Amino acid sequence: MGDETADLARAQRVLAEQPFSVLLGTRITECGDGSATLEIDVREELCQQHGFLHGGVVSYAADNALTFAAGSVSAGGVLTAGFSIDYVRPAVGTILRAHARVINAGRSRIICRCDLSTVDHDGAERLCAVTQGAISVVETPTR
Amino acid sequence: MGDETADLARAQRVLAEQPFSVLLGTRITECGDGSATLEIDVREELCQQHGFLHGGVVSYAADNALTFAAGSVSAGGVLTAGFSIDYVRPAVGTILRAHARVINAGRSRIICRCDLSTVDHDGAERLCAVTQGAISVVETPTR
Amino acid sequence: MGDETADLARAQRVLAEQPFSVLLGTRITECGDGSATLEIDVREELCQQHGFLHGGVVSYAADNALTFAAGSVSAGGVLTAGFSIDYVRPAVGTILRAHARVINAGRSRIICRCDLSTVDHDGAERLCAVTQGAISVVETPTR
Amino acid sequence: MGDETADLARAQRVLAEQPFSVLLGTRITECGDGSATLEIDVREELCQQHGFLHGGVVSYAADNALTFAAGSVSAGGVLTAGFSIDYVRPAVGTILRAHARVINAGRSRIICRCDLSTVDHDGAERLCAVTQGAISVVETPTR
Repeated sequence: MGDETADLARAQRVLAEQPFSVLLGTRITECGDGSATLEIDVREELCQQHGFLHGGVVSYAADNALTFAAGSVSAGGVLTAGFSIDYVRPAVGTILRAHARVINAGRSRIICRCDLSTVDHDGAERLCAVTQGAISVVETPTR
Repeated sequence: MGDETADLARAQRVLAEQPFSVLLGTRITECGDGSATLEIDVREELCQQHGFLHGGVVSYAADNALTFAAGSVSAGGVLTAGFSIDYVRPAVGTILRAHARVINAGRSRIICRCDLSTVDHDGAERLCAVTQGAISVVETPTR
Repeated sequence: MGDETADLARAQRVLAEQPFSVLLGTRITECGDGSATLEIDVREELCQQHGFLHGGVVSYAADNALTFAAGSVSAGGVLTAGFSIDYVRPAVGTILRAHARVINAGRSRIICRCDLSTVDHDGAERLCAVTQGAISVVETPTR
Repeated sequence: MGDETADLARAQRVLAEQPFSVLLGTRITECGDGSATLEIDVREELCQQHGFLHGGVVSYAADNALTFAAGSVSAGGVLTAGFSIDYVRPAVGTILRAHARVINAGRSRIICRCDLSTVDHDGAERLCAVTQGAISVVETPTR
């Protein structure tokens, strides 16, 4: 538990150092032990032309959550190698929540999955996308 | 040629209607005949903690370019179904350029690939990521 | 429960009609309610040059398991649209087991994930690959 | 030219040492300089229940072609890390041809793409699937 608190504090510092995450208003609400959760308040400037959250915001959140989850089990630096995303439905709601978890942590490559949901005013979650990705462990932390 | 000019003008209008693309400063410089090119000026607020363009900006550009390329060959609406992205190197430069092209246009599903490069001050391009994705053709345009 | 028994019997008939699955010796041990499990006995002719199960056998099992899981929730025909696979470690053991489950069943597109493990002589399972994929629902069953 | 001949001879030896590739009857017709082409004669035992080549044969060919293309530019061993595949149409024809090429060769990770086509009696090619994947460079060759 102490480790997860330390992991979360460290992840919050990293997130605060990412200007793009600050621009989007991303919060990290949980990080540690191979798991990470990011949240973004949905607002108009993050949407596309039909009022849905832009798919690019969803893929950004996936990318970042996958990497934070991997970082929580790695002593070295981590770097997103790649991921695949399948959109399930248009993202509509008040909060986007990205929950990632480590599936397998190898020496040089960590495989994670991430589920992305929108949360309604009443707290109901609806899945909007799922991803699976590979995170590289790097000697010199570059991310 | 006339069609491509019309396609480009239509794509520019759609892009201008995407608040998230306006926030990022995305331009569409070419669109038509199964191809689309987006550009984003690299600036600090789009970066991560090491000064590289955030992977989420790269994946956003891929998502959007794939969909514009598909849209240029579809009479109906198009919607990103999913894509996979492999990052090749950290994105450093003055411009991010996403060039997508249709590989196969089926009746309900259009497969595209997109190459993402950064452009230096002297115009030299360096590949930073590659993607492959599927775009759904929808009866009621929702994107 | 009755439905799952019927689903399994139907899936076993389909599998028996796939010459390639017969060639590989694939069994379906569970199918229904958005889930499917395939098993293949590891034997030398399914291996690559280092004695590991060939990655192509693993990707075949993933493809087929994803589609059987999707088929168990679809009234129409189903057809693999695409998938991504991340290999986790060389596949060594006596049985390859592919367990797939539906993550989201849309009207025309069903998203599934599949975990692939090898099983040892003593029954211990070791994850060797994970996949995520999209299955198309088709009016005329073609698969 | 000499190098490509040597690469092809080496690749043919590796292929002959893969029992699964022998079972499927895979030929390698070109390999070298970041490119590889595999061919498989379509025959009934490689098909699924509707007479199309089984998707698992297509994904096997993709996996193997990606890795041979990567191997042709790597001094070390290579190992498929993962790939994504999008099927374009049912695979019908007399030969399956998988043509892969290196997109970017990093120190530890090589990104490739592969196009899969069926060839008709009259030599006409029809695209049936496209893939993109990552190949790991390993110190101890294990594949």
